[in-house]
Amino acid sequence: MRKVFQAELHQIGEGLIEISDLVLEAIAKATASFAAADLPSAQEVIAADARIDFLQNDLDERAIDVLALQGPVASDLRMIVGSLRMSASLERMGDLARHIAQLTRLRFPNPVIPASLTETFAELARLDIFIAGKVTELLESRDLELVAEISAAKSQINKLHKTVFATMAAPEWQETAATTVDVTLASRYFERFGDHGVSVARKVSYLVTGEWQPEEFLAL
Amino acid sequence: MRKVFQAELHQIGEGLIEISDLVLEAIAKATASFAAADLPSAQEVIAADARIDFLQNDLDERAIDVLALQGPVASDLRMIVGSLRMSASLERMGDLARHIAQLTRLRFPNPVIPASLTETFAELARLDIFIAGKVTELLESRDLELVAEISAAKSQINKLHKTVFATMAAPEWQETAATTVDVTLASRYFERFGDHGVSVARKVSYLVTGEWQPEEFLAL
Repeated sequence: MRKVFQAELHQIGEGLIEISDLVLEAIAKATASFAAADLPSAQEVIAADARIDFLQNDLDERAIDVLALQGPVASDLRMIVGSLRMSASLERMGDLARHIAQLTRLRFPNPVIPASLTETFAELARLDIFIAGKVTELLESRDLELVAEISAAKSQINKLHKTVFATMAAPEWQETAATTVDVTLASRYFERFGDHGVSVARKVSYLVTGEWQPEEFLAL
Repeated sequence: MRKVFQAELHQIGEGLIEISDLVLEAIAKATASFAAADLPSAQEVIAADARIDFLQNDLDERAIDVLALQGPVASDLRMIVGSLRMSASLERMGDLARHIAQLTRLRFPNPVIPASLTETFAELARLDIFIAGKVTELLESRDLELVAEISAAKSQINKLHKTVFATMAAPEWQETAATTVDVTLASRYFERFGDHGVSVARKVSYLVTGEWQPEEFLAL
């Protein structure tokens, strides 16, 4: 019985890694299609999101079955409840990658972002991809040094997100209102993606250490 | 033992209603302060959000304790897991009310929204407050007719959200980029708030009927 239970816990962990891997693929492809105004890639991201949603539902069902059949306690219980939370964050990250792809599709063949912000968004994309990659690695290794790297990347995102808003508020900004709307939404999608990555990292950290340290993260 | 367990389940349900009530208060006050550029009210909403966060954490801890100590199965288990999900949505609704209040504070003493969109945002506010009220009522009564009312309100929000974007894309729109950014963010906050309300409603519906009907909701 114990052995079956451990196998089931292991499977849940593997399921999270699988979803996280797809999220990494989604954000990499979404941001590349966004940068290059590449419609076929954007369509692929939009279509692939259903798979992430399916896997999340499936994982949640399995987690609830384990709760029902095994009645886990203590750290095992927290691990399963934590998995439900992490799968929700990962699913949301998939949605945000899809939103980025949908903006790309909406403005195709034009790019969503004006030339003046291309580099800022390239950097935001790099940071989101970095976070998604580190989250996957963290789920695999539970190496908490990665949590600090994820948080550091998120603070860089926050700075860039503010830069985007400052750029749009400056008198030199002469873009159309439609572009301003798109840039606002895009910047928020990139920022939210990183934020959900931090949520997953905090959850892993909590599961490993048993300590919840929101202040530390808020300070970053 | 069974009696204690039922009392604990009841308490979790009461906890959700309490949070939902605070969310209703938050969105009512946030949208009023937003409409009137009322800084003291906005500050109150921002300060009060910590209470929602605290209650969510507290509820989640109690739910996990019940899982650990009682090992519930079947519908009781789903109810508890569902509560964890609903509390997360309600907490997020509180955050969004806070974001609306923060926009109010940021632009004070000016209003966030130009006069041309005042009525649209008043209607969005009315719909968000309606949804928050109906969610509280639904958590209390489990009357599934409320679910349809919530979904109908959300489709009205979606239409208004699109109207806001169409207004900004029209040639008559002569507002500054800063205003365009604010309106974009505000409209999204109002829309997300309603969306999380629908998530809670769907979850209640699922717990009552045992049937998950995402398509129906997506079609609305």
